[in-house]
Amino acid sequence: MYDPNNIFAKILRGEIPAFKVYEDEHTLAFMDVMPQSEGHTLVIPRTQARNFFDIDADALARLIKSTQHVAKAVRAAFNPDGMRIIQFNEPAAGQTVFHIHFHIVPCYEGRELKGHSRDMADKVMLAQHAERVRKALEASR
Amino acid sequence: MYDPNNIFAKILRGEIPAFKVYEDEHTLAFMDVMPQSEGHTLVIPRTQARNFFDIDADALARLIKSTQHVAKAVRAAFNPDGMRIIQFNEPAAGQTVFHIHFHIVPCYEGRELKGHSRDMADKVMLAQHAERVRKALEASR
Repeated sequence: MYDPNNIFAKILRGEIPAFKVYEDEHTLAFMDVMPQSEGHTLVIPRTQARNFFDIDADALARLIKSTQHVAKAVRAAFNPDGMRIIQFNEPAAGQTVFHIHFHIVPCYEGRELKGHSRDMADKVMLAQHAERVRKALEASR
Repeated sequence: MYDPNNIFAKILRGEIPAFKVYEDEHTLAFMDVMPQSEGHTLVIPRTQARNFFDIDADALARLIKSTQHVAKAVRAAFNPDGMRIIQFNEPAAGQTVFHIHFHIVPCYEGRELKGHSRDMADKVMLAQHAERVRKALEASR
């Protein structure tokens, strides 16, 4: 059920680049290249898991703790009015990459969220956004 | 920032009823009375926390483990094609009750999700749905 050639597995192996903002022994966070809003960030475990159902419970606990840690930095970096934490399972729910991931989606009053996995963002902008999150993480130490 | 008279706090204190499906020392799960789809279930911590940012990391870890446990039962009970795990922070993101909660939202091919917090569901149906989830939890022991 787990395809080791999904794009997040390739990012974990360093085979393709990503706009990384955080990593530790168990998890990795990087900018979504098709953001629904400014600051849209993804958090994934290093362990191989397709979705919410097959990930080990302790790995899931570590994943949500990293998601919280990074979400606080995204909030500090972008000052959104709200934030959604979202996790999709299977295509019927909107999952497009089959390595479990949590979406951190900042919400801004008066600005609608873009569709999921719709438009590729400008890479210079993504690099700048990643830098803002990394700086917020450093400031939180 | 935490209002102890929010409706989930009242459910936790037993002051108002809920269609409960699961509880343990740290968490409680019950049917969303305004479901976005058949089987829409909520999971909350017993601890007082407004959102994803102010909940203690270990309490959050326990909450996501309960959410996974209940989500597996919802999946077994309703056999959806997919599932969304969603958590809203602040009104700009869609939060309507200010006690942190994870939504378990089953997704079915060809059936659109209803809007969030839109229509109150039939209580007999909600009671039946809760019973289906409880039976799936019992069967998983």
